[in-house]
Amino acid sequence: MKRNIYLDTVPMDEAVAKVRALLDRHALIGTETVPTHEATGRVTAEAVYARLSSPTYHSAAMDGIAVCAERTFSAREDEPLRLAPGEFVPVNTGNALPKGMDAVIMIENVVMNADGTASIEAPAFPWQHVRRIGEDIVATELLIPQNHELNAYDIGALLSAGIWELSVRERVRACFIPTGDEVLDFHDRPEPRPGQVVESNSQVFVSLARAWGIDARRVPPVPDRPEALTAAVTQALASDAHIVVIGAGSSAGAKDYTRSIMESVGTVLVHGIKAMPGKPSLLGVADAAHGGKLLVGAPGYPVSAVVCFEELLAPLAAWLEGRVRGRRRTVEVELTRRVPSKLGMEEFLRVSIGHVGGKHVATPLSRGAGMITTMTRAQGICRIPVNSEGVDQGEHLRAELLVPEEALERTLVTVGSHDNTIDLLADALMGLENPIRIASTHVGSMGGLMAVKNGSCHMAGTHLFDPETGDYNFPFIKKYLPDMDTVLVNLAVRHQGLIVAAGNPKGITGVADLARDDVRFINRQRGAGTRILLDWHLSQAGIAPSSVAGYDKEEFTHMAVAVNVLTGAADCGLGIMAAARALGLDFAPLARERYDLLIPRACLDDPRVQAVLALIKTEDFRTRIEALGGYETALTGQIMTPGLPLP
Amino acid sequence: MKRNIYLDTVPMDEAVAKVRALLDRHALIGTETVPTHEATGRVTAEAVYARLSSPTYHSAAMDGIAVCAERTFSAREDEPLRLAPGEFVPVNTGNALPKGMDAVIMIENVVMNADGTASIEAPAFPWQHVRRIGEDIVATELLIPQNHELNAYDIGALLSAGIWELSVRERVRACFIPTGDEVLDFHDRPEPRPGQVVESNSQVFVSLARAWGIDARRVPPVPDRPEALTAAVTQALASDAHIVVIGAGSSAGAKDYTRSIMESVGTVLVHGIKAMPGKPSLLGVADAAHGGKLLVGAPGYPVSAVVCFEELLAPLAAWLEGRVRGRRRTVEVELTRRVPSKLGMEEFLRVSIGHVGGKHVATPLSRGAGMITTMTRAQGICRIPVNSEGVDQGEHLRAELLVPEEALERTLVTVGSHDNTIDLLADALMGLENPIRIASTHVGSMGGLMAVKNGSCHMAGTHLFDPETGDYNFPFIKKYLPDMDTVLVNLAVRHQGLIVAAGNPKGITGVADLARDDVRFINRQRGAGTRILLDWHLSQAGIAPSSVAGYDKEEFTHMAVAVNVLTGAADCGLGIMAAARALGLDFAPLARERYDLLIPRACLDDPRVQAVLALIKTEDFRTRIEALGGYETALTGQIMTPGLPLP
Repeated sequence: MKRNIYLDTVPMDEAVAKVRALLDRHALIGTETVPTHEATGRVTAEAVYARLSSPTYHSAAMDGIAVCAERTFSAREDEPLRLAPGEFVPVNTGNALPKGMDAVIMIENVVMNADGTASIEAPAFPWQHVRRIGEDIVATELLIPQNHELNAYDIGALLSAGIWELSVRERVRACFIPTGDEVLDFHDRPEPRPGQVVESNSQVFVSLARAWGIDARRVPPVPDRPEALTAAVTQALASDAHIVVIGAGSSAGAKDYTRSIMESVGTVLVHGIKAMPGKPSLLGVADAAHGGKLLVGAPGYPVSAVVCFEELLAPLAAWLEGRVRGRRRTVEVELTRRVPSKLGMEEFLRVSIGHVGGKHVATPLSRGAGMITTMTRAQGICRIPVNSEGVDQGEHLRAELLVPEEALERTLVTVGSHDNTIDLLADALMGLENPIRIASTHVGSMGGLMAVKNGSCHMAGTHLFDPETGDYNFPFIKKYLPDMDTVLVNLAVRHQGLIVAAGNPKGITGVADLARDDVRFINRQRGAGTRILLDWHLSQAGIAPSSVAGYDKEEFTHMAVAVNVLTGAADCGLGIMAAARALGLDFAPLARERYDLLIPRACLDDPRVQAVLALIKTEDFRTRIEALGGYETALTGQIMTPGLPLP
Repeated sequence: MKRNIYLDTVPMDEAVAKVRALLDRHALIGTETVPTHEATGRVTAEAVYARLSSPTYHSAAMDGIAVCAERTFSAREDEPLRLAPGEFVPVNTGNALPKGMDAVIMIENVVMNADGTASIEAPAFPWQHVRRIGEDIVATELLIPQNHELNAYDIGALLSAGIWELSVRERVRACFIPTGDEVLDFHDRPEPRPGQVVESNSQVFVSLARAWGIDARRVPPVPDRPEALTAAVTQALASDAHIVVIGAGSSAGAKDYTRSIMESVGTVLVHGIKAMPGKPSLLGVADAAHGGKLLVGAPGYPVSAVVCFEELLAPLAAWLEGRVRGRRRTVEVELTRRVPSKLGMEEFLRVSIGHVGGKHVATPLSRGAGMITTMTRAQGICRIPVNSEGVDQGEHLRAELLVPEEALERTLVTVGSHDNTIDLLADALMGLENPIRIASTHVGSMGGLMAVKNGSCHMAGTHLFDPETGDYNFPFIKKYLPDMDTVLVNLAVRHQGLIVAAGNPKGITGVADLARDDVRFINRQRGAGTRILLDWHLSQAGIAPSSVAGYDKEEFTHMAVAVNVLTGAADCGLGIMAAARALGLDFAPLARERYDLLIPRACLDDPRVQAVLALIKTEDFRTRIEALGGYETALTGQIMTPGLPLP
């Protein structure tokens, strides 16, 4: 039994066009009169004509004296003209010109004599330094056309023209209804149990919508019961909202009631868009009895919801009110990795962008629709078109920026092994007078070496132990980056060991315990320095990986490994002491190792890299590292050379 | 006596740097704890670490059945595996995985049998369609560094991580004090008398500042008396504002007290910047006794004030709170006219920008600092650097956009003679389903022909009468654009005549009256069709221009001419009936003439031009034209050919 849950998915622009064709926006969005000084960001409902001219009178444009120009024509430098009181009148900027006078001479060019006369050394020409009536605004002229979004300057012009209030379109109002038995209201500050999640899409929507000039609000979550959902939707439709957004339940699962509820109050126009994330979006229009309002079913996954908000709801809301919607700024980026994409779907690829070696490099982040942190960590979004099967490594494409372009110049790109000291560094760099943002992607030490090789990062965290030489990193650099000039700087010496549950109930003390039947391990991904370390210890102990239960279950960070142990999903994993300590877990030490920063020499003079090197040498930063536990800082900030023993 | 009123003007970045070096922002801007859901746009005061993981449990990523992957390995398409109840559990997206299960099979790939078993045709691999603990967020990890401006996505991540409140920097608060004996408070809805102006800079500031995330307010205007000004400034310094802005009085005239008042409460760091407009800006820091607050003296002219706000105050406010300030988007433009500029001053040239013939053309607007409409009419600003003496016609430079880049594609550029029907057109085009904004520059008919020739507009309004042939426009097009393929479309036939005061007190009925001693004329600029018409009528009547009082006083639009008559600055001027009627003036008809739109054939298929041609053929638009008075629409919308008589 195969079910096709979406009857006909459509491209996003088509989805928007469908609604525009069938929703009567002029009936939905009314007009209102607002005071001009509160009208910034509003859209005019009708043309505005000036009521007053500006200036309303011939006005002195400078401080000085007003004169009749004709009477000054004889003034010369070698034969100054003396003007009697009455032939000139002192004026300040903005004063009305006295009757019969048509020019102003700047005070700097006038000598006031003791007898009350004034001497000038040059004639004035007519209308010199005079702002004439209507120079800026002429009464009755068209000041602002209809359907214009008023900016701050417009407010200045309107007030100058004597327009105290004006007719504008209503602000678009939206109501978001979160749904789901499993979702908790963040207002209750809940502690979620397994199966429960803190609902946040509603607030992401409210925050985005406010930035778009939408008057948005949310209601508390409604459980997955048709009658409760219907009541909530009906109530929202009866309110003053022009748009009702139903959060989650937009797919076609057993508890996905959104479509049927939309059908009970109106017409569903779109169910399913050709976009990833964002596919299970719903658009509809309420019946006339329900005000002909816009109905939106937003997907439950946070990134899908964002796509629905930004690509469907935002353009429709802008159109409802009559705004021009500015798109995000774009930059050309070079993709650091191949990204396959599903034909027939437009993909919104979140990327970490940095300016490295004269170009913008973009590293794809995780593609899961459930990961809101891919939006918070991304500097941009690349759209992979519907008709594309993917993008190759090194290919150039446009990225829409989620940050100001200026922020990219302040972004330091690190790709490689993750360590908690990188988080410390990320925070400390943001505390500088000129803050630097770290964009880090965790791909393991080997991935970091490759990123350095490809010129796609400013530095890479690496802790690759070479059993043959007993050295760290250099043997790998020599092997994989033979022709590249790099610098290796130590960030810390750290303790790796087995992270086990608090109290170590299974008595795990070394790699030998990993072969036990009752011990479930959680591994790190291939290429991770920690994985290489494990493999070496296993081989030293003569244990085959296949005899370790869970060897094939991989996580990408120390913290993720620790969380597996905390929740009982695994009994132990190899990781750093800081990760165990952060979650209150126990730790069986296995090895000390060097965690270094590999820097292409071409990047060494980069001010961002220099800021890192200066920062990690400070006493304050070393103290913060040591406070994490399981770290030593004797080498921190020092340039490493091959064969250096651990202190 | 020459006075140098600014002791040392400095470039703007230097002015900002001076304040940054001497103002203790950490002492000035405190921190506060706010609920996370209200924190959008705020700047973190410290690092935020995740409290909860997300998800907090292994979670079904799809609707379907949860299984133990190991138990499904034998399933094949030709040999489906039947799972007994207990071997599988139905799950919806977001449900916790039951104990012992580690994979989800999508409901579409499951056959539910009548006996309660479930059949599958393919094995599940471990963790398939499962969102694992901490996939998005791992408890204790760094979620947001310090000094980060929180966006909507961050709010989602913070709530998911169980962060209900967080420490942020205070919003920057600013208080604006308008000053001047001549300024009127717009709240009073005043009717200004000569010498009075409606104060609006304070509200322009408040509107701009709110968009920058500043909590801004204004107080009522304070008269130019030192004690009143000191009281107002002291009161503002005692309030919770971090920045006190004093509007106007920043220059060095007789009533410019701002500098001395700033010196009485603190230190003036900058008086005068190398910028036009904007020069008379003041920056200072209040004494510790006054909270070490930022003091700003903003110039009185509206465009100077805007430059002060945007170039000095905005970057300082962003720095105070620790924000990255995004700059405006820029496009490359080709300048349509030569613009000389003063060496030693950076000039902010307001330009009207349109996309014509595959490039962005920028027409400079008036340069007066007193004209706020140059900001409302501009699509962009070109900076002419300090060390430049100007920019040549045809030169390419960057323009900072004041509108979304998308808006340029919706902008129709008209350059030429002004007519009230162009205003009607501007409003009507904004009423289309896809609104079009007219960017019009009034340079007279001949100026319009030159703009068409240079490819710097989509169309030009022209009404050039050729006495020799009795024809309109064609003889001039033939002479000045001999090689250009153009189309001439009539917009209206209009009545030109002498605009005189209501009741025509001086009994002016024809050109013969212009030679009278008691009649003061107001003329149009050289190249204006109306001026050419006047010259022809004067020559027909045998009147020398030199015998017309006021022949040398020029205005650029019909409305400006009419305003001169309305205010008594002149007794009459030649113009269109609509202008007289709009201001309640009388009108002595002189001639009927054709007002045509000249369109380069290359622009004829442009959708914006097509929209104009479609619009002016509508009955509704013709009715609006005729309602202005003094217009006939028999030819409106028709393509003109040489020698066509007036209807």
